Parts: sequence; C-alpha cells; structure tokens
Amino acid sequence: MTQYKVPVLPGDGIGPEIIAEGKKVIDAAGERFGFDVEWIEYPHGADHYLETGELISEETLKELSGYPAIYLGSIGDPRIAPGVLEKGILLTARFYFDQYINLRPIKLLEGVWTPIKDKTAKDIDFVVVRENTEDFYIGIGGRAKKGESKDLLEVKRTLYSAKFGLDIETDSEEIGYQIGLISKEGTKRVIEYAFDLAENRKKHVSSVDKANVLSDIYGFWREEFNAVAAAHQDVTTDFNFVDAITMWFVKNPEWFDVVVTPNMFGDIITDLGAMIQGGLGLAPGGNINPKGTSMFEPIHGSAPKYKGQNKVNPIATIWAGAMLIEQLGEKEAADTIVNAIQKNILEGKVKTYDMGGKNTTSDVGNDIAKILKGE
Amino acid sequence: MTQYKVPVLPGDGIGPEIIAEGKKVIDAAGERFGFDVEWIEYPHGADHYLETGELISEETLKELSGYPAIYLGSIGDPRIAPGVLEKGILLTARFYFDQYINLRPIKLLEGVWTPIKDKTAKDIDFVVVRENTEDFYIGIGGRAKKGESKDLLEVKRTLYSAKFGLDIETDSEEIGYQIGLISKEGTKRVIEYAFDLAENRKKHVSSVDKANVLSDIYGFWREEFNAVAAAHQDVTTDFNFVDAITMWFVKNPEWFDVVVTPNMFGDIITDLGAMIQGGLGLAPGGNINPKGTSMFEPIHGSAPKYKGQNKVNPIATIWAGAMLIEQLGEKEAADTIVNAIQKNILEGKVKTYDMGGKNTTSDVGNDIAKILKGE
Ligand SMILES: CC(C)[C@H](C(=O)O)[C@@H](O)C(=O)O
Ligand SMILES: CC(C)[C@H](C(=O)O)[C@@H](O)C(=O)O
Repeated sequence: MTQYKVPVLPGDGIGPEIIAEGKKVIDAAGERFGFDVEWIEYPHGADHYLETGELISEETLKELSGYPAIYLGSIGDPRIAPGVLEKGILLTARFYFDQYINLRPIKLLEGVWTPIKDKTAKDIDFVVVRENTEDFYIGIGGRAKKGESKDLLEVKRTLYSAKFGLDIETDSEEIGYQIGLISKEGTKRVIEYAFDLAENRKKHVSSVDKANVLSDIYGFWREEFNAVAAAHQDVTTDFNFVDAITMWFVKNPEWFDVVVTPNMFGDIITDLGAMIQGGLGLAPGGNINPKGTSMFEPIHGSAPKYKGQNKVNPIATIWAGAMLIEQLGEKEAADTIVNAIQKNILEGKVKTYDMGGKNTTSDVGNDIAKILKGE
Repeated sequence: MTQYKVPVLPGDGIGPEIIAEGKKVIDAAGERFGFDVEWIEYPHGADHYLETGELISEETLKELSGYPAIYLGSIGDPRIAPGVLEKGILLTARFYFDQYINLRPIKLLEGVWTPIKDKTAKDIDFVVVRENTEDFYIGIGGRAKKGESKDLLEVKRTLYSAKFGLDIETDSEEIGYQIGLISKEGTKRVIEYAFDLAENRKKHVSSVDKANVLSDIYGFWREEFNAVAAAHQDVTTDFNFVDAITMWFVKNPEWFDVVVTPNMFGDIITDLGAMIQGGLGLAPGGNINPKGTSMFEPIHGSAPKYKGQNKVNPIATIWAGAMLIEQLGEKEAADTIVNAIQKNILEGKVKTYDMGGKNTTSDVGNDIAKILKGE
C-alpha cells in the first residue's frame, strides 16, 4: 500500500469543518485505490496567532517544504485586521514555495444551479491559470506625506507636467502607493504551463491583461505571451482586456478553454468564475509548483459567521482534495472523487443550504465517501 | 431660447454613427423643451492621428476647457497599437479636465434581456462612482534589464529576503513594473460625491478595494472612506473586496445603491455591470468635474468590425446624451429622453440586432426622437 504524508492546515472559521470532510473523502478513496494518507496537522491561523504571535515561521515553512502537497482549509478572522493572516500565512506560503500556478477549474457540474441564463454544464467548462507569485501581490507599497518623501509626491506632479506641460500643484497631504512587477521568467513559466494544459484540452488559450492602460507591466506580459504562443502553432489564442472578459464569462463562457492571467486579475475573474459554476461552495483551487510543494484549498474564505454550525458546503474542499491526490500521482482516485461529487449532486438528496438542501457539512462528506466506497 | 455650445468628438469606428443619433435625440429634446445646441465638431481619433500625427494637443484641450460638457463617441482603432489612442485622447481628457468622477448607472430598463436569472428591472438599479484620475491609471511604470536598473531588480530580491530571511537569487533578465497611487484629496472628493449621491437615493454606499493584499494603496482608501462615512451617519455602508463584488453583481445586484471604487477596479466592475443591465449597447457613462468640463460617452468601444454598417445600438450614446444635458441643467429634458428610451424598448418594434431586432442604428435614433416629439 502506497503511503503518503500530507500536512494539513485547517485554518480559521469553517476551515476545520470542511477539511474534516475533505480528509474523510480522501481516506475513503485511499481504501478503494490502495493508498494511505498520514495527515500531519498544523495549527496555523487566527487562534494560533492570537495565542503565540506567530503567523507561520520560517522553520515551519522549511519543514513543510519537505512534502509535495499541503491541504489548506481557509484563512481569515474578523478579530484580526484584513490582510494580516491572508498575507502572513496564505500568500507567504504561495510565495515561499514558489507556487507559481494557481489552477482554478471553472466547471459547472451537471445538476448545479448557475445564476447565468441559458447555460448548461457543457457551456461552462474551462480552466483559469492564474500567475501566483508576482504582479501586484508582491506587497511593495507605502505612504508618503508632503515634504517627507519628495520623490513620491513629485511623481504625480511630474506626470501631469510631462503630459501637459502644465505646472499643476498637488496639495496632497498624503498619498498611498503600490507597485506591481512581473519578471520575464515568472511570466514565461506560467504561460507555458497554460499552453501545455491547452495541448491536452481544446487547444485554445485566452490571455487577460489591461495592456491599453497599464502598458508597462502588461505590454510586457503580452510580449511574453506572444513569444510562447509562437512556439505552439497548433494552439489558437486571443487577448482579452480584463474588463471585457468579465462580460464574456457571463455571456459566453463556452468561448473559453484555458485562460491565463496575471495574479490580481486572476483573483478577480476566478471569483466571478466560481459564481457562474454555482458559487464559492463549489470552487476548488490548487497552488502548484510542479517540482516543489503545492497547496490545495477551496477558493472561498473562512466564512466566520457559519463557524461551528456544520452548515456550509464542503464540496469545494473535497474537490481541492481530488486535485491534491492527482498531484500526488493518484489520477484515477482523483477522477473518481470528482465523479462521486457529481453523483452526490445528481442524486440531489444530500445537499447543503446553498444548493437548496437542508443537510449538514458532514452529511455531504459522508454521502460522497459512501458513493466512493460503493456503499 | 437657451443656447448651448457642445463640443463633440465622434471618434473612431462606430463613433460617428452613434453620435449622429445622440445629437438627433438631443436636438429633438431641445425643440420640445426650448433649448438649442450648437454642436462643435472635433476630428480627433485614429484618422486624424494617422494624417497629422496629433492625438490631442494642449491647445485643443485648452479650447475645450471653455465648455461645461463634451460629447464623445468612441476611441480605438486596430491600425494603431492598443493604448495609444485610448491613453492619448480618452485618458488624457479625463486627466486634463480633472474629471474625477466616472459616473456609471447600472440600471436594467424594463423589457431588456439580462443574462442573469431571476432578476428584473427593480433588482438591477444602482450607480457606480468610479474614481477617474488616479490609481493605476496614472501611467507610471517601466522596464528594467538586469544590471541596468539595480534598484528595480533589487526590489523583488529584497522582498523575498525581508519576508523570509532568505537570499533568493533572481536571475530575471527583465522585468516590467507599474505604479499606482491615490492621494488624500483625490480619494476624499470622489467618496464624498458618492455619499452625496446616496443621500438622494437609498442611502447606502458600498466601497470596493483589495485592502487585504494591496494594503498600502487600498488601506489608505479605506481610511478615507471611513472618514467620509463618519460624517454621514444616516448612510449605511459596507466593504467589498473587488473579487467578491463581481459575484454579488451577478447573484445579488439588488444589494447595491451607490458603489464607490478606485479607478482600475471601477473599470472592471462596470463592464460586468454593463452586461447585467443588458450589454454594452445600453451602458452610458459620464466623466464629471462638477466645476469644470465634463465628458459623456457610451462605455463601449469603437467596435471597428461594425463600422459604417448602421447596425449597432445607439442607446448607450443617447443615454449618455441625456446625462450630458442634465449636467447642463436640463434635468426635465434628460428624464424625458430616458423615458423615451424606455418607451422605445417597451414598444419593442424598433430595435437593433443585439436586442433581437433587425433595425438600424438610425432607425432607433429616429424612433426615440419621434417619441420625444410626441409624434
Ligand atoms: C484571501 C486572499 C489573499 C486571496 C487572494 O487574493 O489571492 C483569495 O481571494 C484567493 O483568491 O485565494
Ligand atoms: C478604453 C479604456 C482606456 C477605458 C478605461 O480603461 O477606462 C474603457 O475601458 C472605459 O472603461 O472607459
């Protein structure tokens, strides 16, 4: 029997409840497909932070880097200012492990209600490949007060005068600024991943940018995209401005096969994608470093108001679990989990409130585990 | 009879066709409400640029700044690299005239098809107030090659080492970067405008940001939002991360009254907003400087492939025309134009292809003008 060791960070809010169901389902798949997972629990999240002051230490990160895949619940807590936990744990992990691919399938399962008219499972079936280590997520920015950082206040003034030959006085007392950057190899590797993925799908890659306005950063993205596309003549391509693609996700989701996007735009369009595939309760994601440590999670947050109620939908987390074991090499078991999720939905008897049902989180996990075991 | 002078830039692609209908409808409203508009045509756009090399000169901008409102068609042409015309004309005007409010009503008219299930005109009726002169639209960015600009390559390395105490070597050959900034007064004035607007509506303002990740720039935004909110105790508020709000626009548009957003996120969510109100053919926008020169336009682009076909929907432009004359003080005439648009749609006889009809651009303009004149 194959043995795997998988670190698991249940995290905050509903994290522990949904992760429990995810583990249950993977364990059931293991029974059926002949593997066994030893779960190694990590306490990181809000409580741990409030008790110890530690977000996640370099030592822990080093330790985690010994494993191919981590299972993550959800991070975030209303007691702590927005961003502290998300940046201190989730984004830190994505960056530390150099998980440069954030893979988010946008797939409407059969029998799931979508808010979009006239679209069925065959119309909504694409994958978003979100760059996951660069762009505006690098966390570089700051504030400047008048007189304090002349440089940064000058920036705006210079802009106006360079553009218009005017000497507009800014009487700003204070500014906030943020920098995004993308590198040649950081852009190339994620776009290459997207093309490789498309080779095994419908051979179409859509690029997302805003090169008509953020021309420096995304003009660069376009060039890299074109360079990679030139090496994949059998794959068709198109360019989408980020504003426009939000319309097409809603109006013509059937146009898409693989969508590759810089980090921040990827964040935005995958939430919209989650909605068209039936809501956050159904949207899994993988943070992937093909040669290192990957991390799988539902793309929803920690939903603090539902904590401890055994109420929320565990399907996103269970599906993320399927992606995790696929990463470990258990492709057949992974497909079987997704099929079991599909069967649970089609039977329509055991479902949580967001899908119009009255069952608990663990009811759904139990049902999917049962289907898997053929009970 | 009141006399107005209105500069008009029909622009590129379908711009001239839709602007012709917009002028026709405003002229009809003038006949009925006792005002007369002298249209002053400007040639700026792709052809003018290709012929003369001029985008828009400071002289022209100075001249235009003598008028309270400009009527704009659409800018953009496939012969010219993305961004050149958009930045050189459209964004230049927004910045030059300091049109700090980009006002975009998201209103589903009765009888219009929306791609969203179970929502009707009463559910989709809110306004987005997009900041229009700052954020990532300031056009500051660049590229750096290894060794050339040590500073900028160091930025990424420093980030990693500051975060993890690691000395990760980046072997990036090249990077592209972009800077966004918002100022205290630039943020305050647009948020104040949103609260003032909400005072005359349902008294709710929703803020959009990504303060959990782009904390420097949008943490600053949040503080300003909170400061303005404190002075409007009768208005309720909420905060939305930009990723999440794309879901609520689709799932629960009835939650919103006034949405105030930084520039770039505003660009994205208003295209999505346009889609839920029936598509770009129906979405108007105003670039407003309450004490200076404003500019009104459809929010769609120049649709080059439809140019000269008399085919596209002029309603967005006609509606933008209504916003324009409201800005000039002709509130009653403006409301009457919007009612005439509504009547044209409800009668359902004269409509363009995007609304399931077979009529031309000018058929629709003629019909709305006729309704206005009571013919
Ligand atoms: C929680 C937050 C930092 C995160 C992100 O912005 O990436 C989330 O929205 C996501 O999409 O995984
Ligand atoms: C054409 C483009 C520069 C513009 C923008 O990004 O603001 C457009 O998308 C809009 O929303 O008016």
